[in-house]
Amino acid sequence: MPRIIDRLYAAVEDKGHVCLGLDTDLSYLPQDFSDSYISPREKIFHFNKRIIDATLDVAAVYKVQIAYYEALGIDGFLAYSQTLQYLRDKGAIVIADVKRGDIAKTAEMYAKAHLEGALEADFITVNPFMGMDTLKPFYPYLKTGDKGLFALVATSNPGAGDLQGITAADGESVSEKLGRMLEREGEQFLGKCGYSAIGAVVGCTNREQTLRIRQRLPRTFFLIPGYGAQGGKAEDMKDYFKNGNGGVVNSSRGILLAYKKPEFSGLPFDEAARAETIRMREEIKSAV
Amino acid sequence: MPRIIDRLYAAVEDKGHVCLGLDTDLSYLPQDFSDSYISPREKIFHFNKRIIDATLDVAAVYKVQIAYYEALGIDGFLAYSQTLQYLRDKGAIVIADVKRGDIAKTAEMYAKAHLEGALEADFITVNPFMGMDTLKPFYPYLKTGDKGLFALVATSNPGAGDLQGITAADGESVSEKLGRMLEREGEQFLGKCGYSAIGAVVGCTNREQTLRIRQRLPRTFFLIPGYGAQGGKAEDMKDYFKNGNGGVVNSSRGILLAYKKPEFSGLPFDEAARAETIRMREEIKSAV
Repeated sequence: MPRIIDRLYAAVEDKGHVCLGLDTDLSYLPQDFSDSYISPREKIFHFNKRIIDATLDVAAVYKVQIAYYEALGIDGFLAYSQTLQYLRDKGAIVIADVKRGDIAKTAEMYAKAHLEGALEADFITVNPFMGMDTLKPFYPYLKTGDKGLFALVATSNPGAGDLQGITAADGESVSEKLGRMLEREGEQFLGKCGYSAIGAVVGCTNREQTLRIRQRLPRTFFLIPGYGAQGGKAEDMKDYFKNGNGGVVNSSRGILLAYKKPEFSGLPFDEAARAETIRMREEIKSAV
Repeated sequence: MPRIIDRLYAAVEDKGHVCLGLDTDLSYLPQDFSDSYISPREKIFHFNKRIIDATLDVAAVYKVQIAYYEALGIDGFLAYSQTLQYLRDKGAIVIADVKRGDIAKTAEMYAKAHLEGALEADFITVNPFMGMDTLKPFYPYLKTGDKGLFALVATSNPGAGDLQGITAADGESVSEKLGRMLEREGEQFLGKCGYSAIGAVVGCTNREQTLRIRQRLPRTFFLIPGYGAQGGKAEDMKDYFKNGNGGVVNSSRGILLAYKKPEFSGLPFDEAARAETIRMREEIKSAV
């Protein structure tokens, strides 16, 4: 089996740059579909399953945002587990968007929770604010080649600059310094594609900063939020990838709720999700 | 009912400064105790229950580290929920050490997950790396007076300085700037005790930095990790509190595994935990 980062690279070559975000909230489900199931677990899982079945050949990777499931307690936990297992059974690549970050034995526990067992994912997102030592407990998993991380570097939210944008005396921002640290750590986990198993979450709402980070991080694969509604544009993407690969662009609500858009009216939610995924994929492809 | 920060302040007055960390790993349980239960859920919950029953009058607050429970899947989830409910039923104050941090609707979901429902805690820890806007979804809960946050500011691990210690051109570190932002946010949630419902996690392994942060954050209650094994000393604590209150000091393994220490040999694990909690409490009290 190829390394996970090489599998992700190949998936982008094959299917395009869309990372489909399963941030599934009960309120997103069409009423009649929702009414046809009893438990929140079933509603959410079967909605996800329909979306997944309709997009497997056009989405490079799926990102499952655990917060939406955590909010539903046990039922959410089961829907989350079932969704991850379904994705992996189908051969899809799964990023668990958990943004965990803690030290030593606590980080080991998070690794155990999310890189093996009932909630096993291929990649997880991590929050590196506590320092580089918080990543090390994940390295035994990365060494196998089967697992990877995406560490927050520069996010796309309005307050992202509060800490990430603090500029050191040498003129470099926190995000830039962090990016360089991660790039260095990643060197021990390089895939054949030239990217490492330690990816970075880099938003596309601040073009200049994203360019500075891409320049400093030639071997780091990007998970890019902020596309579309938040302001990120397709034409910027070619500068964030390298030779047309090296990043995936996330869309969650834009795809899950595509069935509410006028241009897809009349389509079932899964077909609308597929149509929107293809639209986004082509938009990025033609700009890249 | 008084505001939660006033309840915490009063608990410190009454019971001392110990925050008892229930980072319960199955390997910490005495073998014969562990063998007397079948499921991990029961083992962990009943261990916690015995520790809680033995320390309710000497620990100011309990901190439950969710990673240890998350690693056990559904069973861990149930043990975690049961532990939080038991603590709250007993009138104890509970900090859920979840270190979540995300934006907008995702942060709302984390609030829903951890400040209400089956996993309801009184305080949760949050990771503010993504910016101040990530805290706002918690504010409706803080406004009720019943809930509070502890935001990571300066942690006690070896790599804490990697990002938190980056110094801006004006000479202030990321932790110091972050602390000031939090202090400002907290002004809208002040309790009668003079502290706000937005507390800070400030380690005690870097004395100079902790003093600078305390000076900048007069209204911020501290949750202090790093005591004991990591190097934090009782005599430093008086400078981290103000007039003897304004902070709690965490100990997890030191208390849960006290039964393995020579000085408590022969004591059942819960009595050893009580003895160690009292020892630590007195050590801090006499230094303060």
